[in-house]
Amino acid sequence: MASPRSSRKREQKLNELTASQAVTLLRKGEVSAEDYAQACLDRISEREETVQAWVHLDPDYVLAQARAADDLRKAGKGVGPLHGLPVGVKDIIDTADMPTQNGSPIFKGYQPARDAFCVATLRAAGAIIMGKTVTTELATLTPNKTRNPHNPEHTPGGSSSGSAAGVADFMIPAALATQTGGSVIRPASFCGVYGLKPTLGLISRRGVTLQSHTLDTVGVYGRSLEDLALLGDVLSAHDPDDPVSYVRGRTSLSAILAEKPPLPPLFAFCKTPAWDQADAVTREAFEELVAELKDHVQEVQIPSLADAIENQIKVMGAENAAYYGAYLKSGGLSPGLANRVETGAKVSGGDYVKAVNARETIYASIEDTLLHYTAILTPASPGPGSKGLGSTGNAVFNGMWTYLGVPCVTLPLLEADGLPFGVQLVGMHRDEGRLLRTAKWLVEHLRKGK
Amino acid sequence: MASPRSSRKREQKLNELTASQAVTLLRKGEVSAEDYAQACLDRISEREETVQAWVHLDPDYVLAQARAADDLRKAGKGVGPLHGLPVGVKDIIDTADMPTQNGSPIFKGYQPARDAFCVATLRAAGAIIMGKTVTTELATLTPNKTRNPHNPEHTPGGSSSGSAAGVADFMIPAALATQTGGSVIRPASFCGVYGLKPTLGLISRRGVTLQSHTLDTVGVYGRSLEDLALLGDVLSAHDPDDPVSYVRGRTSLSAILAEKPPLPPLFAFCKTPAWDQADAVTREAFEELVAELKDHVQEVQIPSLADAIENQIKVMGAENAAYYGAYLKSGGLSPGLANRVETGAKVSGGDYVKAVNARETIYASIEDTLLHYTAILTPASPGPGSKGLGSTGNAVFNGMWTYLGVPCVTLPLLEADGLPFGVQLVGMHRDEGRLLRTAKWLVEHLRKGK
Repeated sequence: MASPRSSRKREQKLNELTASQAVTLLRKGEVSAEDYAQACLDRISEREETVQAWVHLDPDYVLAQARAADDLRKAGKGVGPLHGLPVGVKDIIDTADMPTQNGSPIFKGYQPARDAFCVATLRAAGAIIMGKTVTTELATLTPNKTRNPHNPEHTPGGSSSGSAAGVADFMIPAALATQTGGSVIRPASFCGVYGLKPTLGLISRRGVTLQSHTLDTVGVYGRSLEDLALLGDVLSAHDPDDPVSYVRGRTSLSAILAEKPPLPPLFAFCKTPAWDQADAVTREAFEELVAELKDHVQEVQIPSLADAIENQIKVMGAENAAYYGAYLKSGGLSPGLANRVETGAKVSGGDYVKAVNARETIYASIEDTLLHYTAILTPASPGPGSKGLGSTGNAVFNGMWTYLGVPCVTLPLLEADGLPFGVQLVGMHRDEGRLLRTAKWLVEHLRKGK
Repeated sequence: MASPRSSRKREQKLNELTASQAVTLLRKGEVSAEDYAQACLDRISEREETVQAWVHLDPDYVLAQARAADDLRKAGKGVGPLHGLPVGVKDIIDTADMPTQNGSPIFKGYQPARDAFCVATLRAAGAIIMGKTVTTELATLTPNKTRNPHNPEHTPGGSSSGSAAGVADFMIPAALATQTGGSVIRPASFCGVYGLKPTLGLISRRGVTLQSHTLDTVGVYGRSLEDLALLGDVLSAHDPDDPVSYVRGRTSLSAILAEKPPLPPLFAFCKTPAWDQADAVTREAFEELVAELKDHVQEVQIPSLADAIENQIKVMGAENAAYYGAYLKSGGLSPGLANRVETGAKVSGGDYVKAVNARETIYASIEDTLLHYTAILTPASPGPGSKGLGSTGNAVFNGMWTYLGVPCVTLPLLEADGLPFGVQLVGMHRDEGRLLRTAKWLVEHLRKGK
């Protein structure tokens, strides 16, 4: 083993660096991409039997990519913002050099011809694709093998199970996830990582298995807010081939995050119409949080979120039926997913259109709150990941925000019985920069209070 | 009466001018807007009892608008391209100064607060809004009072019944129409006027009663191809508040129409999967037409149009259920429309999404034909307007093109038993300029042949 890694190891384990810390060391050449990748692979060797985050991983190929990255840097070639950073990719996202099996026997061994736009963007920025992380069946509710790294008898959440568990367990510094109901935020909450589900359209969905064009959103996991900004900046390249992709202003999320907020934030604590589904520990935790935030928080009621919850279910149902309906006939769906698709097929076209159309009206109804307050403060999940691996938990605290297309970030600030769970902040469309900066204020404010 | 009108009347009746001829005379001051409007009003007085094209008409208000237009011109103020031209507006299009009753008791006496974008655009170009023309019930199939001016026992078609009949009967030189199935092209065919259903998105739909956001398209009627270009140029202003509105290149339709085609056209005669619903006279007429066009035409088969016909029905059904479903409960729908909305509500959300999504694929499947041939040649309707006023006829030759969003023009070139019917030309998206120029070649070629 090369000496820089050995020398650093005495200070901090390489695989425990945040992505932002790692890219700085990698760019300067203080850590080689090979050593860094090896540290991550070592952690995977040690822990994969317990955590089971990976569906495809080829250590030799990872190391070959890492050595190529080192050669490039040594040759003085330009390096991108993610040069040498290993990233996990959820297995519903196409990779030209690894299978994309969608967590379903229907796609067993399926090898896409091209990278998804977001994967190509990561590679162009210098990232190393570490492997494919476990997804639930077709990114819906039926779990695959991954376990919660904090307690393997508990669910890691889903559908981005392997991405969340891999980042939480220090196997990779960052990973790609996707959300149609609560599949970015919920696993991050259960596994205790930072997660960003950005505004619909910030990150292209081309090459990502489609289950709902109105809802599907690509997000990211990291071990700090800076990680989310770093990945978000790279991934927000405009893609004219995704109809919802928009051209983003040029101010980087990282730059906004590095600023001090011009004013102390004022949070809108929103229990949401899902509050009666929150665990007792969540109710207590938010009571304490609100008390600690004092005059930085006010409680708000947003009754129109009840319609958002209902409409997300209708839209997801109808679009699932459109995109997965063919598998009902061809076979290969689990009974749970087959039932979901059959139920979705019962949503009428008229009700579907009304549910899609209501989105702008409901967003308009929360815009006043979003303008008056710096961010909405709300649970990321009903509580920690529950015991048992048969369910990935309840997405009721997520679907309404996915439907509205607003950016959401979850912060691993809460814990019960050794299991983490998240605080969710929600912001205005296309305003994830300010949302991350507000989140940073919250993390630091609570840290000071301790 | 002023003398210019009397002197012109000896040459040609003012109300029989085409819109293009009229605007030239109006601009030069050779005809006053007042005299021109009076000639149209005289024709309406004479014929309205038979034709019944109007649901709202206030002659004094029309003349007041016309006198104001004359005063502006006499004062040397700038005049727009439609200065002093009376235009009929279908009664599903909002007008701030006249009721918009949608051909339905539900909207009896309803007075919108603002002009529709297209009406405001017409006024800004100097047009005079003549009045509101009869529409079928909520622009669907249940007829209102209008009759075919060529034989009042026959249907004028629908839903833009009054606009088509008014232009055909020389009551107005031009009018606004809309199409969701076949409501621009079919009435033009039955009444014997020129009609343009442009590319979806050329003309804004803001302020037009919404029955299907995927299909609803605003179109125009005139008495020549130049009239269609004139109106199309004015109305194609970009409207950022209609999601399908696009920014058009600056070459005017009138300028393209005035050019000679660089090559003689080659038409693709397409019977379409609806051919077995064409009348015998239509089959004969097209046989003759194809024979007369000799090597300017080839017959083509486009099997994917069968799916386009089916998909238009599904999309219209589901969206009708979304937008008109509330009236089922509140009451006021005719039994026919109530039944249509109930049937539409049975389209599942999944089938609806698939029907919307298939549009691009089917368009791609006809693009080769559209690239190889100058235009598709096909019936505008199954035949002439049939006897009886209980039905506005069959839109089967129109729905597939509306679904695909392609521009369609109908030319009043055919006749049977004293009743006109149209030849339809279909072109590529956003290419109505070339379509109109090709149509002009066809009209002139057939005229020479006679």
